[in-house]
Amino acid sequence: MKAEIVSIGTELLMGEITDTNATYLTNQLTAFGMKTTHVTQVRDDLDEIVDILSLAWNRSKIIVVTGGLGPTHDDLTRDAIAKLFNEELYRDPNIENHIKQFLSNRTGRTPASINLRQADIIPSAQPILNTAGTAPGLLIQSDGKVLLSLPGVPHEMEKMWQEAGSTIMANANTNLAIKTRTIKTFGLSESAVSDLIPEILSEKDPYTGIYAKPDGIHLRIISMAPSSEEANKKLINIQQAIVHSLKEFIWGWDEDTPAGVLGALLTNKGATIATMESMTGGLIGSTITDVPGSSAYYKGGFITYETQAKTNLGVSQNDIHTYGVVSPQVALSMAKRTIELTNADVGISITGSAGPTAAEKEEPGTYYIGIQYKDKGTAITGTFRSNRLAVKLRATTHAIIETVKLLNSV
Amino acid sequence: MKAEIVSIGTELLMGEITDTNATYLTNQLTAFGMKTTHVTQVRDDLDEIVDILSLAWNRSKIIVVTGGLGPTHDDLTRDAIAKLFNEELYRDPNIENHIKQFLSNRTGRTPASINLRQADIIPSAQPILNTAGTAPGLLIQSDGKVLLSLPGVPHEMEKMWQEAGSTIMANANTNLAIKTRTIKTFGLSESAVSDLIPEILSEKDPYTGIYAKPDGIHLRIISMAPSSEEANKKLINIQQAIVHSLKEFIWGWDEDTPAGVLGALLTNKGATIATMESMTGGLIGSTITDVPGSSAYYKGGFITYETQAKTNLGVSQNDIHTYGVVSPQVALSMAKRTIELTNADVGISITGSAGPTAAEKEEPGTYYIGIQYKDKGTAITGTFRSNRLAVKLRATTHAIIETVKLLNSV
Repeated sequence: MKAEIVSIGTELLMGEITDTNATYLTNQLTAFGMKTTHVTQVRDDLDEIVDILSLAWNRSKIIVVTGGLGPTHDDLTRDAIAKLFNEELYRDPNIENHIKQFLSNRTGRTPASINLRQADIIPSAQPILNTAGTAPGLLIQSDGKVLLSLPGVPHEMEKMWQEAGSTIMANANTNLAIKTRTIKTFGLSESAVSDLIPEILSEKDPYTGIYAKPDGIHLRIISMAPSSEEANKKLINIQQAIVHSLKEFIWGWDEDTPAGVLGALLTNKGATIATMESMTGGLIGSTITDVPGSSAYYKGGFITYETQAKTNLGVSQNDIHTYGVVSPQVALSMAKRTIELTNADVGISITGSAGPTAAEKEEPGTYYIGIQYKDKGTAITGTFRSNRLAVKLRATTHAIIETVKLLNSV
Repeated sequence: MKAEIVSIGTELLMGEITDTNATYLTNQLTAFGMKTTHVTQVRDDLDEIVDILSLAWNRSKIIVVTGGLGPTHDDLTRDAIAKLFNEELYRDPNIENHIKQFLSNRTGRTPASINLRQADIIPSAQPILNTAGTAPGLLIQSDGKVLLSLPGVPHEMEKMWQEAGSTIMANANTNLAIKTRTIKTFGLSESAVSDLIPEILSEKDPYTGIYAKPDGIHLRIISMAPSSEEANKKLINIQQAIVHSLKEFIWGWDEDTPAGVLGALLTNKGATIATMESMTGGLIGSTITDVPGSSAYYKGGFITYETQAKTNLGVSQNDIHTYGVVSPQVALSMAKRTIELTNADVGISITGSAGPTAAEKEEPGTYYIGIQYKDKGTAITGTFRSNRLAVKLRATTHAIIETVKLLNSV
């Protein structure tokens, strides 16, 4: 079933914001078995909006529109929809009440009359309640087609999609069940993964996409069939074949994040963790604490950016002198001292050079990860030639995934 | 002059990647005085690509195409352009040589013949050298119109734009000089800024856009005039009026980042800095060290996530007991201890609750920043009700900008 997205807002066309709504929606539509053929961004211009909506209505079954539902005179989506379907807007009293209540709850004041424009709707449209804001969504179903108009503010749009849009899509595509699965690997390049599973990647049904992400190479399987059982069976077959070929490189599934997987493992083992970072400057600690509830297992850490900060904390001066501050020996010494200083069960450390200039003799992009789990210690070398921020992010992800591997192996 | 963007690639329409190329290019086109009316994402489907290119060629003066220039049979932009202009592709020997050399330099092997498809071009197009990859860009100029086809890989696209595309655009729009300026503020909401400068924001020439960003509210002035001097004069007038109204809230200009501004100030004063963070978990240290050369002024830091980590480092147990660990007194005590422990000139600290559940009695999203500069200390309260990651990012930005303010005031 062909779908398309229309994103409305002059700010998009001036490069002031990126259309992440389109990414979210095309991803969702794909999971519902739709084929999105076009995403179009247009300005807040009535004629231009009507033109693209009319083109979309002619060539696609499903049209999802975002943006242009706000209260100001630049917000023209309601007018464009009225013009497209040749109907007149009227003010819906129920929506008007919702808007008045929402705004007076938030500001304690009677809303300005301009806000009530958001209660305007055409007779053939069904309003969709906005539980996160004022502008309702609009749903038009006719000729076996669906036009769904959502707010442009990402969190309002996503909430409305989850609460109402997804059900509308599931109903629109009753003849196919869809199952998806994402498998997340780390440690192989995109071409190395392709070389290991060439037949799977050239298969069209189920379709497996391959994507390079900051946390490794992801494989996304999309399986469709008349029944849910059949779709699931096809998915499991491909999944097993992928796991068979890539087992040792897989660290997560679907919505997993490296820090989330690490947190679940630590919670499961009742273990605590602490960090000592130089090159990453605190990014490992920050990433671990991105997970809600991480205070239960993350004790804290040290950012030993200058060499003296390391020796002050008791990292072996002798190792630094003999091997250099960017070395596997110093990484290991840092991880050990982390445990001694904090009483954590696991210590992670990083020493390296993020660039653009070398910290020591090592080339920028070279780093060493130290991991100490009770009496077991290991040092891992990493290299990633890119800009400073990408190197920091890569080293952080690498350190967390190596810690996951080590905890899984004991 | 009307412009539009066509972004080609099935992965965009499946929501696997976000079209950040469009953001970059619409931003650039705006700065060159173009009005981008449409951005369209299409799949790797020859007919669909030809349809949209033909529509774009009819309605716009400038068309910038990204993607679909790779070596595989899914890469159809060359074929679509040939079909659009009704010409035949031929293999250009100079491009062929560039591709052979580029690939053999990188891999040490003779490139597979499929790579040489990238040397195919139509007679009326001019190739644009790709210094960062193999696929050349294509330029067609006819009927006073410009079609520029660039690779889809963002760093290749941006490099080619900077090296060639920007000159093409400047030549296409010879009759206008354009000056832009971004003014970055922190501490006021978007509507509070709007209320302070309503006339400036409703002015069309020069145009001033207002944008809410993680590091505050940005104002972007775009000034166009027949001469560069005139454009500049108009820009300076608006800029002065904005500075007059918002002076105390402005922390940066154009490409400035909070950490970059802080780094420049510290370098200028010959001062060093260190951090002690609980709620942000290392994000302040990581953000400070995102700046190349930060090792000259950043000594290091402590991530005192659990309360005991704070008292272990000598943060006043009495203050924690009396005021609670999330309190301005403890923030100040942390900042002081940071200086004592590291000998840095400036100490920054944060204590707070990122949510979703409260750390103590304080609501999630409430935090206290401590800043100690030599013998001068201050504690600042912040609240930001959002998700955990957004709260961490906001508190980090807030802490860095408050440190900039304090250093500027002494």
